[in-house]
Amino acid sequence: MSPERPYELAHLGHIELFTPKPDESLHFFVNVLGLTESGREGDSVYLRGWDDYEFHTLKLTAAKQSGLGHLAFRANSPEALERRAKKLESMGRGIGWVDGDMGHGKAYRATDPDGHIFEIYYETRWYEAPPELKPALKNQAMRFPARGCNARRLDHLNLLVLDVAATREFLTDGLHMRNTERIMLDDGTEAGSWMTTTNKTYDIAFTLDHTGVAGRFHHVTYALDSREDILRAADVFLENGVFIETGPHKHAVQQTFFLYVWEPGGNRVELANAGARLMLAPDWKPIIWTQAERAKGQAWGLKTVESFHTHGTPPVA
Amino acid sequence: MSPERPYELAHLGHIELFTPKPDESLHFFVNVLGLTESGREGDSVYLRGWDDYEFHTLKLTAAKQSGLGHLAFRANSPEALERRAKKLESMGRGIGWVDGDMGHGKAYRATDPDGHIFEIYYETRWYEAPPELKPALKNQAMRFPARGCNARRLDHLNLLVLDVAATREFLTDGLHMRNTERIMLDDGTEAGSWMTTTNKTYDIAFTLDHTGVAGRFHHVTYALDSREDILRAADVFLENGVFIETGPHKHAVQQTFFLYVWEPGGNRVELANAGARLMLAPDWKPIIWTQAERAKGQAWGLKTVESFHTHGTPPVA
Amino acid sequence: MSPERPYELAHLGHIELFTPKPDESLHFFVNVLGLTESGREGDSVYLRGWDDYEFHTLKLTAAKQSGLGHLAFRANSPEALERRAKKLESMGRGIGWVDGDMGHGKAYRATDPDGHIFEIYYETRWYEAPPELKPALKNQAMRFPARGCNARRLDHLNLLVLDVAATREFLTDGLHMRNTERIMLDDGTEAGSWMTTTNKTYDIAFTLDHTGVAGRFHHVTYALDSREDILRAADVFLENGVFIETGPHKHAVQQTFFLYVWEPGGNRVELANAGARLMLAPDWKPIIWTQAERAKGQAWGLKTVESFHTHGTPPVA
Amino acid sequence: MSPERPYELAHLGHIELFTPKPDESLHFFVNVLGLTESGREGDSVYLRGWDDYEFHTLKLTAAKQSGLGHLAFRANSPEALERRAKKLESMGRGIGWVDGDMGHGKAYRATDPDGHIFEIYYETRWYEAPPELKPALKNQAMRFPARGCNARRLDHLNLLVLDVAATREFLTDGLHMRNTERIMLDDGTEAGSWMTTTNKTYDIAFTLDHTGVAGRFHHVTYALDSREDILRAADVFLENGVFIETGPHKHAVQQTFFLYVWEPGGNRVELANAGARLMLAPDWKPIIWTQAERAKGQAWGLKTVESFHTHGTPPVA
Repeated sequence: MSPERPYELAHLGHIELFTPKPDESLHFFVNVLGLTESGREGDSVYLRGWDDYEFHTLKLTAAKQSGLGHLAFRANSPEALERRAKKLESMGRGIGWVDGDMGHGKAYRATDPDGHIFEIYYETRWYEAPPELKPALKNQAMRFPARGCNARRLDHLNLLVLDVAATREFLTDGLHMRNTERIMLDDGTEAGSWMTTTNKTYDIAFTLDHTGVAGRFHHVTYALDSREDILRAADVFLENGVFIETGPHKHAVQQTFFLYVWEPGGNRVELANAGARLMLAPDWKPIIWTQAERAKGQAWGLKTVESFHTHGTPPVA
Repeated sequence: MSPERPYELAHLGHIELFTPKPDESLHFFVNVLGLTESGREGDSVYLRGWDDYEFHTLKLTAAKQSGLGHLAFRANSPEALERRAKKLESMGRGIGWVDGDMGHGKAYRATDPDGHIFEIYYETRWYEAPPELKPALKNQAMRFPARGCNARRLDHLNLLVLDVAATREFLTDGLHMRNTERIMLDDGTEAGSWMTTTNKTYDIAFTLDHTGVAGRFHHVTYALDSREDILRAADVFLENGVFIETGPHKHAVQQTFFLYVWEPGGNRVELANAGARLMLAPDWKPIIWTQAERAKGQAWGLKTVESFHTHGTPPVA
Repeated sequence: MSPERPYELAHLGHIELFTPKPDESLHFFVNVLGLTESGREGDSVYLRGWDDYEFHTLKLTAAKQSGLGHLAFRANSPEALERRAKKLESMGRGIGWVDGDMGHGKAYRATDPDGHIFEIYYETRWYEAPPELKPALKNQAMRFPARGCNARRLDHLNLLVLDVAATREFLTDGLHMRNTERIMLDDGTEAGSWMTTTNKTYDIAFTLDHTGVAGRFHHVTYALDSREDILRAADVFLENGVFIETGPHKHAVQQTFFLYVWEPGGNRVELANAGARLMLAPDWKPIIWTQAERAKGQAWGLKTVESFHTHGTPPVA
Repeated sequence: MSPERPYELAHLGHIELFTPKPDESLHFFVNVLGLTESGREGDSVYLRGWDDYEFHTLKLTAAKQSGLGHLAFRANSPEALERRAKKLESMGRGIGWVDGDMGHGKAYRATDPDGHIFEIYYETRWYEAPPELKPALKNQAMRFPARGCNARRLDHLNLLVLDVAATREFLTDGLHMRNTERIMLDDGTEAGSWMTTTNKTYDIAFTLDHTGVAGRFHHVTYALDSREDILRAADVFLENGVFIETGPHKHAVQQTFFLYVWEPGGNRVELANAGARLMLAPDWKPIIWTQAERAKGQAWGLKTVESFHTHGTPPVA
C-alpha cells in the first residue's frame, strides 16, 4: 500500500456457497463449525462467526451443484466503491449494480478472468445480537457460543483459476490489492498467489486449476484464536464424522496453521490460525517460492495431499 | 480510515527506552525477553524480536533515569512523511528533521501535548540475518531463537498523559489515527484511549497520569503467538526473578491477554496476545467504557493493581 | 507407596453435592461445565465428564443447604475394600456398609475426624454410551461434547477441616494415602495438606476451617487438557454469568493451573490443568511450605483472595 | 493392578542410547531438545529433563552403532527389587547384578525375549540442582531452562521385537505390568502392545520388527506440558535442521499427541503430550485394535509413514 495508492477495500465481507445438501450443510456450519444463523430468505441461510461484526459472512444457498455463488469485499467508503466500479467497468470486467440482499446495500458486480463473481459494497448491516446472545463484554459482536469448533471470524478464501498471473494482475489493478507471496514453477508458470488488502498477510488466494475448467472454488477459511483451538476442532470433526482432508499442520507459505475438511455439500472449508503474524511493512516485497522449495511439502515436512490439487467445487465430470 | 482520509502511518516502528541499569536491562531484553541485538552505537543497543522486519524495534539507551527517549512510527510513503511533517509543523507541534540513526533514515520529530517525542520516518533498514540466524522458512525475518520468552514483534506502547482527550485529538488530527476504545469517567474526564493506524485494534494507548508530571511512560508491548506462550513467559519471568506486576489475565478493554513486568531499569514491559481479534470495519465506532464498567476490573474479574495507576517512568520524586 | 504397603485405593470415584437450587445447578453442570447426565433417581441426578469411565463422578442432590453429601474412593480390589473396612472399623471411624446406588455396588462408609462421610467401594458400573454419544475412538468413554467447558474427568476434591494434621493421619493410616505437600504455619499449625493414592500429585486436599464449624466442603475439581482450555472456560463462565472467584492463575503449591467459580447452589468448583506433572518417585518426601512462603501468594504473584479462606459449604450462619 | 498383585515397578527410570556421533547427539539433546547435563564418565554423558527428579534419565554413550544400551525401571522398594530379581532368574531371563553407575545403586539385569537389556534398581541419586539452576518453586527439580524444546520428563520408550505377544507376557509375568492397548492383525499376529506400571496409560511399548533382526530400538519419548509445546518444538526442530519423520499429529492408539524426529546418531526421539488422560481403573480391559482399524491411520487421518515400520536402531545392513 502506498498512501499515493491506498487500499480501496476494507476486508473480505462474505461469500455465497452453493450446496446440493442444504440441510446437512446447515447442520455442519451451525452445529459443527459453530456459526450462528442470522436470517434466511428464499433458498439461502445467512450465517456468521461470533466475532464477525456484519449480519453475515456466509450465505449458504441450496443449489444443484456445490461451488461459489459469489464473493464480496467491503469498500473503505462510498467513494471507494464508486471508484472501483468505474475501474472494473473500464477494464471490461463489470457486470453492473445489484440491490444487495439481507446483509448489505447496493453492490457492484464484476468477474475475474476465470468468471468468479466479485461483489463490492459499502453500506452494510451491523449485526445486532438478540438478548440471549448478547456478549458479556461490549466490544464483542456476540457471545462466545461454546458450540462445535466455535469459528471466530471469516478470514479468507481461495479460488481455483486457469491463469494465476492474470488473476493477480486483475486484483492488483482493479482492486488495489497487494501480492505477498507466490509460487513460480520452473517453466515460468505462476502456480499460486496470495493477495492482501489489510494487515493480514492474505485475504484471498488462488491456485492453478489443472482440470482446465474455469471458475471453480478451492476453500473458505474461518479464523480461530490459537493452534490449540485448531487441534480441538480436529477432535470435533472426528466425532462428527466430517472428512478431514489434511492437517492440522503448518503451511510453509504464509506459515498458517491449517486444518481442511469437506462440508457435506462437498465444499472445502479451512480453520486456520496465524498467531501474531501480520504484514506491517508498506513496501513488502513478495516472497517467491520455487518449484523445488514447494516440493519439500509443508513447514514440518507433511506432503501435500493429492486431492488438494484436484478437488474443487463444483466437481469436474 | 476512509480512503478520503487514509491512514498515513504504516505501523509503530520502534521506541527508545532509557535505563539507569544498562547491563541488567540488556540481559533482561536479550536473555529473558528473547530479543536479539542487531547493533550498538554510543550508549545505545539496538534490539528486535524474531519477527520484526526492521533493523530494530527497541533502542535501549543508558541514561540517569528510566523512561521513554522517543517513539517512532513508520509512514506509508515518502509523501505521507512530508505531509505529516507539514501538518505537525502547522499545528505548532514540530521539532524538526533529524538524520535518523543506525536503523532508519531521516525523520521528523514532534511532541504530543505532554511533550513525548514522536518521530515519523519512511526510509528504513530491513534486517538482514547473519548466517547463523537465517530462518528455515524464507518468509520470516530471523530464525526462532528458542530463548527466554521468545518475544515475536513489537506490538504497541502506552503513554501516561495529563490530558487524554487532547492527546487523542492530536493523534487523530496530526497523524490520522482512529480511536477504537476509550474510558470516560462520571465527571466527564477521559481516563484512557486506544488508537490505531492498522487493522490491529490499537497501536498506541494513553492513560491519565494522576501525578501531574508530564511526559511519562507506561509500558511497551511485544506480541506472542498464543495465550499459552504468555503463560510460559510467566514461568520464565518467575525463574529469572523478574517482578511480575499483574497477570497473566485478560483485559476487558480490547480483550488482550496480558502479562506486565518491570525490567531492571524500572520500565514496565508487557507481553500480550490478541488471538485472532482485528478491527476490519472502516467505520468502527469507538467503544466507550463507563466508570462503573471499569470498576468491575479485568475481563475475568481480576482487580486492577494499584501500581498500574501510579508506576510510570521516570519515577516521580 | 511401598509394595510392602501398597496403595489400597485406585482413585477418587465420585462426590455427592447438595444444592438448594437443583435446576440452576443442573443447568450449570450440564450446559456450562459440560458434564453429561447418565441417570436420575429420587432427588439426585448422576453426572460425569466425557473421559470418566464410570457411570457417574458427580451425584447432584437437591437439599436445603449446599455442601458435601459424601465422597467416594474406588478400592483396588474386593480384598482391599474388605481390609479398609476392617481398618476403619478398628479405628472407630466406621459407619457401616451401604448397598450403593445407581453407580456402584456395596460400599463401606466411615467419617474423617471432621465428620465428612467417606465411602469405599469396588464394584462399579462402567459407563456405556448410548448410540448418539459413542466416541469415534474406541479407547474413550464417550464422545467429546463440544459444549460449555467440556470438563474432562473428575480430578480431586478439597475439604475444610478443623484439624489438618489429624485428617492427614487418618488418610495415611486408614486409607494408605501419601502426603505430597503441606503448609506449616509459624506456630506449628498445619494449615493445609495434599494427599495422593495415585501418580497424580494429589487426589484429595484439606485446609483449615477458621470458622470452627466442622465438616464443610471447599471445592471439587475437574481436569481439562491444557491451560488454554482453562482460559477458554473462563470466557464461557463470563458469558454465562457465573461468579469467577479467582484465577486463572498457577498455584505455587502443586503448580496446578486453576480457575475457581461458584455454582448456583453455592458450592465452589475448580477447573484445573497439571500439564505433564506426575509424582513417580516411590519415596517422595513431602514438600513443606512455610508461612512466609505462602504469604508470597500464588506462583506468579497473585494474592490469595480472602473468600478462599472463608467461603465453604454449607455457609456458616 | 490388583493389591493382591500390586505393581512392583515405580516407573521407567532411564535408558542408555548408543550414538556413533556423540558430539552431534549431545548438541541435539542439550541445545535442541533442552535436556541438562548432570555428569559424564568414560564415553557416557548423563542427561535429564527439568522435571526429572533423578540424576539422569538418559545416558548417552559413544559407540560404533546407534541403538539401545539398556533400559531401566526403578522398583517400588528394596524388597520389590529382590522379588523381581528372583522371578527373572527363575524365568531364565536373568543376567545378574551390577553395581550401578553415576545415577543409581545396584541393579539386576535381565533380557526380554528379544535380548533387550532390562535393568531394575531401587537405590537412586536424587538430582541436586547447582545454585544457578535452582528453581523458583521448591516443588520442582530444576529451573525451567527456556532453551530449545524444553523437554520436561522421560515418559516412555518403544522397542522393536520379533514376538510381541511373548514380550507382553514377559512384562506381565516378570515385571507385573499391565497391558492397556494392543493391535491384533487378521492372521492373529499381535503387532504392537502398550504396557503400564503406573497411572500413565503406557510406560513401555513394543511393535513388530519386520526385518527379523532381534533387539532393535524404536524410540524414546519425553513429555511436554501441552500440544502447543509440541507444535513449538516442531518449529525448533525445523530451525535446527533436525529431520522430522512424522507429526505433529494425534495417535488413535492411546490418543497421544506426537512428534517424531531422528537425532544425529540415528535414534528416533519423540516428544509427546497426553493431556489429562490417565488410566485410573484397576480393572481396565485392554483395547484391541484390528487390522482394519489400524489401516485408517492416525486419529485425524494421517497415514502412518513407511519408515515408522522399518527404521529402527541399530540400522539393518
